[in-house]
Amino acid sequence: MSEKKRTEIAELGEFGLIDHLTKEFTVKNKSTLCGVGDDAAVVAAGRDAAVVVTTDTLLEGIDFDLTYFPLKHLGYKAVTVGVSDVLAMNAQPEQIMISLGVSSKLPVEALDDLYEGIKFACDEMDIDMVGGDTTASMTGLVINITTIGRAKRKAISYRSGAQFNDLICITGNLGAAYMGLHLLEREKRVLKGIDNPEPQFKGYEYLLQRYLKPRARKDIVDALAAEGIVPTSMIDISDGLASEVLQICKASKCGARIYLDRIPIAKQTSQFAEELHADPVVAALNGGNDYELMFTVPLAMQEKIMSLGLVDVVGHITRESTGAYLVTPDGSDIKLRAQGFKE
Amino acid sequence: MSEKKRTEIAELGEFGLIDHLTKEFTVKNKSTLCGVGDDAAVVAAGRDAAVVVTTDTLLEGIDFDLTYFPLKHLGYKAVTVGVSDVLAMNAQPEQIMISLGVSSKLPVEALDDLYEGIKFACDEMDIDMVGGDTTASMTGLVINITTIGRAKRKAISYRSGAQFNDLICITGNLGAAYMGLHLLEREKRVLKGIDNPEPQFKGYEYLLQRYLKPRARKDIVDALAAEGIVPTSMIDISDGLASEVLQICKASKCGARIYLDRIPIAKQTSQFAEELHADPVVAALNGGNDYELMFTVPLAMQEKIMSLGLVDVVGHITRESTGAYLVTPDGSDIKLRAQGFKE
Repeated sequence: MSEKKRTEIAELGEFGLIDHLTKEFTVKNKSTLCGVGDDAAVVAAGRDAAVVVTTDTLLEGIDFDLTYFPLKHLGYKAVTVGVSDVLAMNAQPEQIMISLGVSSKLPVEALDDLYEGIKFACDEMDIDMVGGDTTASMTGLVINITTIGRAKRKAISYRSGAQFNDLICITGNLGAAYMGLHLLEREKRVLKGIDNPEPQFKGYEYLLQRYLKPRARKDIVDALAAEGIVPTSMIDISDGLASEVLQICKASKCGARIYLDRIPIAKQTSQFAEELHADPVVAALNGGNDYELMFTVPLAMQEKIMSLGLVDVVGHITRESTGAYLVTPDGSDIKLRAQGFKE
Repeated sequence: MSEKKRTEIAELGEFGLIDHLTKEFTVKNKSTLCGVGDDAAVVAAGRDAAVVVTTDTLLEGIDFDLTYFPLKHLGYKAVTVGVSDVLAMNAQPEQIMISLGVSSKLPVEALDDLYEGIKFACDEMDIDMVGGDTTASMTGLVINITTIGRAKRKAISYRSGAQFNDLICITGNLGAAYMGLHLLEREKRVLKGIDNPEPQFKGYEYLLQRYLKPRARKDIVDALAAEGIVPTSMIDISDGLASEVLQICKASKCGARIYLDRIPIAKQTSQFAEELHADPVVAALNGGNDYELMFTVPLAMQEKIMSLGLVDVVGHITRESTGAYLVTPDGSDIKLRAQGFKE
């Protein structure tokens, strides 16, 4: 390849790269209801229903560090990662397949721990384990999660349905998982080389839990169904709020205004950010790993959605021409930017 | 984990490991028609139909060597690996999702080659690309393929349906891909450190093609459908004939007799095996990477199945109590054994 042009992956960014690689593909089968570009693929299942399928890969050294990530928690989190994508389609997760690449340095007992966490999450979410395989890995642990869900076709929320003036709602709070990761990395650095290390996590247990054992928001999809609410668009917050808002804007051809002071941030997140002299809002916007849901509903639903007691309205949808902005308390507008390809 | 018992993965073997890890899981959802233990999971899709989903992971250094595996071929083969599992359920492949872990050492142009091969295979098989993602990898290239297919429920062939006296049929010929791999590895060894290496493949092009660019046997599933034949059981031959026969026997609670001299082996496979002083039957039994199909049909269908002109009958199903055996031309029986966990 020495004479060919060489374009670095970082030049395109993660989302630019996917767009670039898939631009030549066209849809040929009538069973394909939604292809590339949403949280999950959607295929026909009978006249009124659909099956949604999503796949995620977690790589050791990139997505998790086994020095401090207990395998049981990792198994639980792997299920959350997959299930969260299915929920983001407003669908119910029903099946999961786990494909592992494992180095022989891991004993069977370590995989038992991993599967204990997987089973715990599956039981909690009423999900069936339906397959997968295990192969050797020369390098680190590789976990692929394929998750299958189901919904009535008309109840599916795509990224592309947000309308002008819709409210932007988010569940839970943001940035805590990212601060949990920073805390774990700090203790790893401080205790390097020490026998019987005793990491200091006191007062920040919530941050650890949010990073190591995030719970997928099935409760939200259940609550929306109970109230007969179908969000006009939905996405899960796995890469940080900024990235998700931009994805919705791109797919729905709209703009957005997010009000900085309405972004829910937990007390421990702010406290630890202060300790690091960091801005907790940056963790919320770009940190990732939250596995909360962001969705839009028509303005007329404001009262109904607030009465759920489960979400915060953080902004609203604007015209595409006005772009996507973060509005600070003093009224200044900051253009939203997503982070690039993580390396 | 220092005080815990340590069991090596190799002690259980790949299939023993999966059985061990998934033994605690139970099926809870009525949409789950088939879970762990077949080529693909099967979920309900309307009253009469089903969606099948399968996932495979290919790891650099284990499943492919980029020193000699052209990325375009690798993309093609990745689709074949996924599609072959769907076909092995007697289902039609319709959608695919590709999830990549890529190190930054690969330029975008390399991924363009990979996707060119993926697109070529998708076009050839009428498959839609419906998603996936790309993340950084600290180590080698990781390719996960999730493939989705569809079938009438009553047309699905499970591993568990083989009956006493059924004929065991296989498509194509076996062992060629494994010999292709050996050829590539030999030339890599011989030419190590040489500038502008010129590997010698003359006369063995077929072996290379079978390893580098195997074509999934959609033609067989189409031909079976055209003739109204639903195999009583089916599996794809990805780990070698011995392993697949044992899988069918285990799932169908039966035995089998495979006649050594009926195993189809291509001329180039025998020739190259002779050059290596190796037994081509061993390549067929344990080599893997063939991506042919093995299936069973009732004895009464012998004439009909032979008239397809696409398969060889290599043996028949026996009682479980008699076990699974390879019968040599001199009439002696050799107990079939599968290879263990590949490392």
